[in-house]
Amino acid sequence: MSDAWDDVVGGSKAAARIRTAAIDEFAEHGYGGTTTRRIAARLGMSPAAMYPHYASKEELLFAIAYEGHALALQVVENADRPDAEPSVRLASVIGRFAAWQAENHRWSRVIQYELAALDREHYRTIVGLRRQTTQVVRGVVDAGHVSGEFTLPDAEGVTLALMSLCVDVCRWYPSGRYDDAATISDLYADLALRLVGAVR
Amino acid sequence: MSDAWDDVVGGSKAAARIRTAAIDEFAEHGYGGTTTRRIAARLGMSPAAMYPHYASKEELLFAIAYEGHALALQVVENADRPDAEPSVRLASVIGRFAAWQAENHRWSRVIQYELAALDREHYRTIVGLRRQTTQVVRGVVDAGHVSGEFTLPDAEGVTLALMSLCVDVCRWYPSGRYDDAATISDLYADLALRLVGAVR
Repeated sequence: MSDAWDDVVGGSKAAARIRTAAIDEFAEHGYGGTTTRRIAARLGMSPAAMYPHYASKEELLFAIAYEGHALALQVVENADRPDAEPSVRLASVIGRFAAWQAENHRWSRVIQYELAALDREHYRTIVGLRRQTTQVVRGVVDAGHVSGEFTLPDAEGVTLALMSLCVDVCRWYPSGRYDDAATISDLYADLALRLVGAVR
Repeated sequence: MSDAWDDVVGGSKAAARIRTAAIDEFAEHGYGGTTTRRIAARLGMSPAAMYPHYASKEELLFAIAYEGHALALQVVENADRPDAEPSVRLASVIGRFAAWQAENHRWSRVIQYELAALDREHYRTIVGLRRQTTQVVRGVVDAGHVSGEFTLPDAEGVTLALMSLCVDVCRWYPSGRYDDAATISDLYADLALRLVGAVR
């Protein structure tokens, strides 16, 4: 990854271990119920040894939120097939995005639910990444609208619902027989085509 | 409401004020980041005065979770029209459920996101209420499948997605021009019919 990535997220192996421990702590006790001291203890580190990597609990939340949102954006961008028909693009983008939420449901849950704890500038950065992800989906929805392949009530509302449906996977996953990412991917690709009125 | 309701939720005005303050505190600081002392302080009460109503923070979370889930179930049951066509029933049930999530988005967010903090028995009670709500929706989905009005990929998967779509309203609401419950209700009724392959 880039230098900018390293600056925000932290490029070292130690930093990656700290982020993993932080996701576990935040997932179990919430952001408010966690201290950097406890995250450090989980790794057998002193709080002082963690400090050069992440100077505060908020910095750490920002790093895991940035990494998670940047990876989700990358997954969605890579899943898009700009030269293909809109319905093929939509099935690919939503199928992969939903699968990513399933594969990373604990991580995603932390960074979706604790966003309000970020400081203003960090929050804006994360909202920017989310907006880029939404824009990929919106681009596909608009392409299908223009080509006539989709019959939409409202491109903005449908895009919002598509994003919402995928993001919420992290809340309930796994559930019943929906316990693997491939099943989620197929189901959500199909549901997305239904939402835009392009049932295969 | 019934005596059973009073036992679980707390029937007095003082108890209702405590629940409202708890929702505000939990919404702002998370369950883990909140103390009963702070909830009491918000009301100008002593922690000792709160104790007869709710003996612990967990009891208080359970009371607001029970009340919220029981009201949502009631809304969904009242919105159903068992004698009407399945598409009319589905639009009514999902439209109202989504609107309820919008109207009560802070409350809903707390009780969706902090469920893991409930003790085992309380958690089971809440899961039971959620399952009843899901069963109302599932009953409508199945009725449309049997009558041939709906063309479904998978009744379980579609029901899961319908519930997920509605519940997630509490995470993002309000957003952009989606800032009133009536707009949400109309959009989601339409989306629900699309998901079951019964576009009006």
